[in-house]
Amino acid sequence: MNAPRYDVIAIGNAIVDVMAPCEEALLTRLGLNRGGMTLVDTERAEELYAAMGPAKEISGGSAANTLAGMAALGAKCAFIGQVADDQLGAVFSHDIRAGGIAFETPARAEDPPTARCLIFVTPDGERTMNTFLGASQFLPPAALDDSVIADAGILYLEGYLWDPEEPRSAMRRAIEVARAAGRKVAFTASESFVIARHGDDFRALMDEGKIDILFVNEHELATLTGEAEFEAGVAKVSAKVPVLVATRSAAGAIAVANGQRAEVAAEPVAKVVDTTGAGDLFAAGFLTGHARGESLERCLTMGAVCAAEIISHYGARPEADLKALVDTRLG
Amino acid sequence: MNAPRYDVIAIGNAIVDVMAPCEEALLTRLGLNRGGMTLVDTERAEELYAAMGPAKEISGGSAANTLAGMAALGAKCAFIGQVADDQLGAVFSHDIRAGGIAFETPARAEDPPTARCLIFVTPDGERTMNTFLGASQFLPPAALDDSVIADAGILYLEGYLWDPEEPRSAMRRAIEVARAAGRKVAFTASESFVIARHGDDFRALMDEGKIDILFVNEHELATLTGEAEFEAGVAKVSAKVPVLVATRSAAGAIAVANGQRAEVAAEPVAKVVDTTGAGDLFAAGFLTGHARGESLERCLTMGAVCAAEIISHYGARPEADLKALVDTRLG
Repeated sequence: MNAPRYDVIAIGNAIVDVMAPCEEALLTRLGLNRGGMTLVDTERAEELYAAMGPAKEISGGSAANTLAGMAALGAKCAFIGQVADDQLGAVFSHDIRAGGIAFETPARAEDPPTARCLIFVTPDGERTMNTFLGASQFLPPAALDDSVIADAGILYLEGYLWDPEEPRSAMRRAIEVARAAGRKVAFTASESFVIARHGDDFRALMDEGKIDILFVNEHELATLTGEAEFEAGVAKVSAKVPVLVATRSAAGAIAVANGQRAEVAAEPVAKVVDTTGAGDLFAAGFLTGHARGESLERCLTMGAVCAAEIISHYGARPEADLKALVDTRLG
Repeated sequence: MNAPRYDVIAIGNAIVDVMAPCEEALLTRLGLNRGGMTLVDTERAEELYAAMGPAKEISGGSAANTLAGMAALGAKCAFIGQVADDQLGAVFSHDIRAGGIAFETPARAEDPPTARCLIFVTPDGERTMNTFLGASQFLPPAALDDSVIADAGILYLEGYLWDPEEPRSAMRRAIEVARAAGRKVAFTASESFVIARHGDDFRALMDEGKIDILFVNEHELATLTGEAEFEAGVAKVSAKVPVLVATRSAAGAIAVANGQRAEVAAEPVAKVVDTTGAGDLFAAGFLTGHARGESLERCLTMGAVCAAEIISHYGARPEADLKALVDTRLG
């Protein structure tokens, strides 16, 4: 097996975040799912946008955010995702390429437009996401270049994208391609509702030994395992995946790899401005460390440093020099 | 004369800012006009965007930024400007309306797309702007609703928009409508290159007594008057306009109104992040004070407080509660 051309290739939503601060009362008035991610149709997206204050547009998408962090840390990355041939699609494509990430999926000419995520950020920094999937859900299996997938050390899959049918087929095929090439498959559960709908798929993939690295937060772990108690959930999943990473927001994170276990506290942050992307950037730090062969504890610390940077400002793409932050922290 | 429905109506570019941090060396490599505003065509816009790092999109436009500040301070505002019927046009329209500003100019169905301004922000916070005017330059005189212009206490005009022909005709007509209704006309010179091209127009308007309030920075003042020395320029222009406001970046600002003169220092800022919109927000604070009948010195202080807020973060639209900042400062 040759050294792979890319450290990681990810398949995920190609989304532009539309973010605005808001008061708690607005979440209630709009009936929003506080702190969660909800899929919305065109009509609801228009209703929510009309109720939103003046906003900023910043590229997003869970796996794409993770790659932006990994690329900033020096990893070689490629992305697969579906934008439409429109202005927001151009924005997404520009930003990911400007971050040094290979992105070759052709834009889709037909409706619907490029995906966007309407994010309401309350004064405590919590983000409430409302995603209009648009073009993103039409990523066809044909958009996958097998040779590129086979040429990446890790295939990283975004759980959100398991929900729509076409990308799910694409991801299933990508798993087979990666495994046949002897590569690792990493998966982020993304959100409890995805697990609620597709938990059987995920459990089957784990049982079949097709997931090498799994990222979950504590809520997703509970939904996935049916275990309300965190440690019971960890025990259940870590018996099935070689590497489990479970994040617990301000309570830090743990990882279990082949019987070994490590834990980190959350890194201190002067002020939590916007938690959008915290999990994505945790994964960025961890995976970069993992690809480099760092110890489990150092991988976790890299994740915690990246997550701390992203929650200190608006948007889920890094603003500070992540590499310098990580190097300083690890010494 | 009835009390006007709006405190101010502005005609300006309807633009979305595309902003990214950059190193000094990139400005040199791209041959950019450091600290200035340059008009670019489609090809150059594409070239510059390709060279730009991952960016944020935030609504901009000089006069629109001023209105966003005024509305945040409690003034009643209306805006006239031309977007295209596309995603960036929808973003601009959303943001201005979400700020509480009346905006009824219909989107233009044809090419070109909505205007954008590619802004490179160097580590000292200086912004270098490259504007693709797009739909903005096609604002037709027919887009003006005379009754609305006549129903605003102040007509505020953006010098940048004096350059393209159609909006210039529109603005000339708006001046006549406002004056016939007994309203005031305020004008911001915007940029030295505009004065270099259209100085004769501006001097004629001043000679004819058609400008009641003029905003300039020290460079624009020098270009307008041909006087290298600041005070000589002030003397020349203040003899012709009832209210002159001249800003001098970190050196503060002065105003001369009907023989009276006031001066303020710049407000302290912890860190200058991005100077985009400093002049626009200075105008917002000053004009709001002026519309309320505040003293010249208090008008200047309101301008300085608003300018200080805007340069402390990315983007030219206010993020903090401007009203609270101004109330605290004025006591």
